[in-house]
Amino acid sequence: MTPEQMQDGILHGNAAVQRRAMAKAITLLESSRADHREQADGLLTALLPHTGKAFRLGISGVPGVGKSTFIEALGLYLIGKGLRVAVLAIDPSSSVSGGSILGDKTRMEHLSMRMEAYIRPSPSSGTLGGVAEKTREAMLVCEAAGYDVVIIETVGVGQSEIAVHGMADMFCVLQLPNAGDDLQAIKKGVMELADLVVINKADIDPKAAMRAQAQITSSLRLLGMHGNPDHATHGALWQPRVIQISALLGNGVDDFWAAVSSFRDMQTANGRLQLRREKQSLAWMWERIDFGLKQAFRQHPQVKAMLPVLQDDVAAGRIAASTAARNLLLAQMQ
Amino acid sequence: MTPEQMQDGILHGNAAVQRRAMAKAITLLESSRADHREQADGLLTALLPHTGKAFRLGISGVPGVGKSTFIEALGLYLIGKGLRVAVLAIDPSSSVSGGSILGDKTRMEHLSMRMEAYIRPSPSSGTLGGVAEKTREAMLVCEAAGYDVVIIETVGVGQSEIAVHGMADMFCVLQLPNAGDDLQAIKKGVMELADLVVINKADIDPKAAMRAQAQITSSLRLLGMHGNPDHATHGALWQPRVIQISALLGNGVDDFWAAVSSFRDMQTANGRLQLRREKQSLAWMWERIDFGLKQAFRQHPQVKAMLPVLQDDVAAGRIAASTAARNLLLAQMQ
Repeated sequence: MTPEQMQDGILHGNAAVQRRAMAKAITLLESSRADHREQADGLLTALLPHTGKAFRLGISGVPGVGKSTFIEALGLYLIGKGLRVAVLAIDPSSSVSGGSILGDKTRMEHLSMRMEAYIRPSPSSGTLGGVAEKTREAMLVCEAAGYDVVIIETVGVGQSEIAVHGMADMFCVLQLPNAGDDLQAIKKGVMELADLVVINKADIDPKAAMRAQAQITSSLRLLGMHGNPDHATHGALWQPRVIQISALLGNGVDDFWAAVSSFRDMQTANGRLQLRREKQSLAWMWERIDFGLKQAFRQHPQVKAMLPVLQDDVAAGRIAASTAARNLLLAQMQ
Repeated sequence: MTPEQMQDGILHGNAAVQRRAMAKAITLLESSRADHREQADGLLTALLPHTGKAFRLGISGVPGVGKSTFIEALGLYLIGKGLRVAVLAIDPSSSVSGGSILGDKTRMEHLSMRMEAYIRPSPSSGTLGGVAEKTREAMLVCEAAGYDVVIIETVGVGQSEIAVHGMADMFCVLQLPNAGDDLQAIKKGVMELADLVVINKADIDPKAAMRAQAQITSSLRLLGMHGNPDHATHGALWQPRVIQISALLGNGVDDFWAAVSSFRDMQTANGRLQLRREKQSLAWMWERIDFGLKQAFRQHPQVKAMLPVLQDDVAAGRIAASTAARNLLLAQMQ
């Protein structure tokens, strides 16, 4: 399939043709071959005018919190409302295991059988930045194909949450009804990214869920005082919320979607949705530039030759770190 | 004064000569002229074999916590023990105000009058990375001059604490006896960097100080579970501590120094002190390389010409962020 055929299939194909074209396009975008990359950039630029209409929903939570069950319930609920849903993932462990558990179709049996849903596992190789780039581009393909909601899920460990926050219109954190958990989330800087905290499995211990809700609400208020500029305290601006659900019993998905819709309306009206996307795109461009500069630097023959020696010298205190940095930068320029 | 004279003065001069040579050397290191930079690198490399014997103590705390009073009390205490003390600063606001408040000699009247103390205000221009680099190099000059303890202070706002942590053997956070304050520190990721938390002004409200101590101790334990590898929970490894003092009344400085000495002994015995310094130096080298690469990139004529247009295109969604990044990287290579 040529990039032109992919483009045509994504924009104008029937359900089956579109699905095949999307899969081919995402595979092309994930390729690391230079000629593929050039074709992929051409395809991406052609699709771009047709993107941006979906709502980009980031969902994070530690293993065991019930993410898959929740996303499946949410996906089926949205399909019931006549919407089309894409589920993408950023799984930092996939590059280790060589295959992704997140987004695995067998996890979401009911959702994956629906034509209105498109589920794609996490890209399985490269750095987190590279994996995130591919997921971001896959998101654009889904948008061009007319999906209404793109869900990007990630596990609640490490930097992947920041990557998902960097491409989502709204960032939701799933928590267990355990009041102590929020400290870990605050520590990792994830809590202050949250637009919505969802206490899942609230039915298991309703009292603990109430306590957790109260505690996280109070933490969010304290964090908000100096926190996320998206969460400023004046005007018609969003205040992060905490809700309780039980995804297994099917309770609370409508409450969740009501909160999401209210966020979306407010962010659209006050212009923050657009602003956030612009900032994300620019931050993303610089992240990729940084990565590319560092890669080119490390591959420069002169740098390659000098680096091991200088690293030893710096570690052993024979040369100052800043002097070594300057010497290496000069070497690359010659 | 030639760099050779500075070197000689720093290493072999009497108190007055040494002081003058240090000031000249630090001024040379702070210069941004290319020929000065070359001389400075030469001087630094010559001094390096004589560095590393001081203990590098980072002290952070928000304005009003009583940092100056505490550092002055500590400095005089250490001089009383026959040690020589240097006080440096990283003040992120100094580049805005054009002059530094931190490290201002008039703040530490008694300490600044002592020949055993060397106080140098924060470098006052450039990015935080640049300011931190100059402070790091000034620290090396103080070490070569035989100072036993180098105190690097910073205000408890923003990234400057991470910069100080990146050059200190031990990182101490000063807090007021207000139990709620620790949440802000946890949020900013500063609490998990702390080797020692010092509750100052504990005499004002002893009950509140006890509560804060208990709460911060419990937070540190929770953070430690997944936290700083310097604070692992097995073997003879350091567990972050919380102590109470009253710098104004002169209470607790000996407790503080006992905790510092115990940390230093443990980190020396288990090899972590050396390991931490090696990691810091290498991280510092890469930080400077990143900065240099980005600076060269932004100054490249082709990039300079393309960047404004591409930034607009990315923000407006006419070109994908990753495509724009690739185009700019290609432009720089041509």
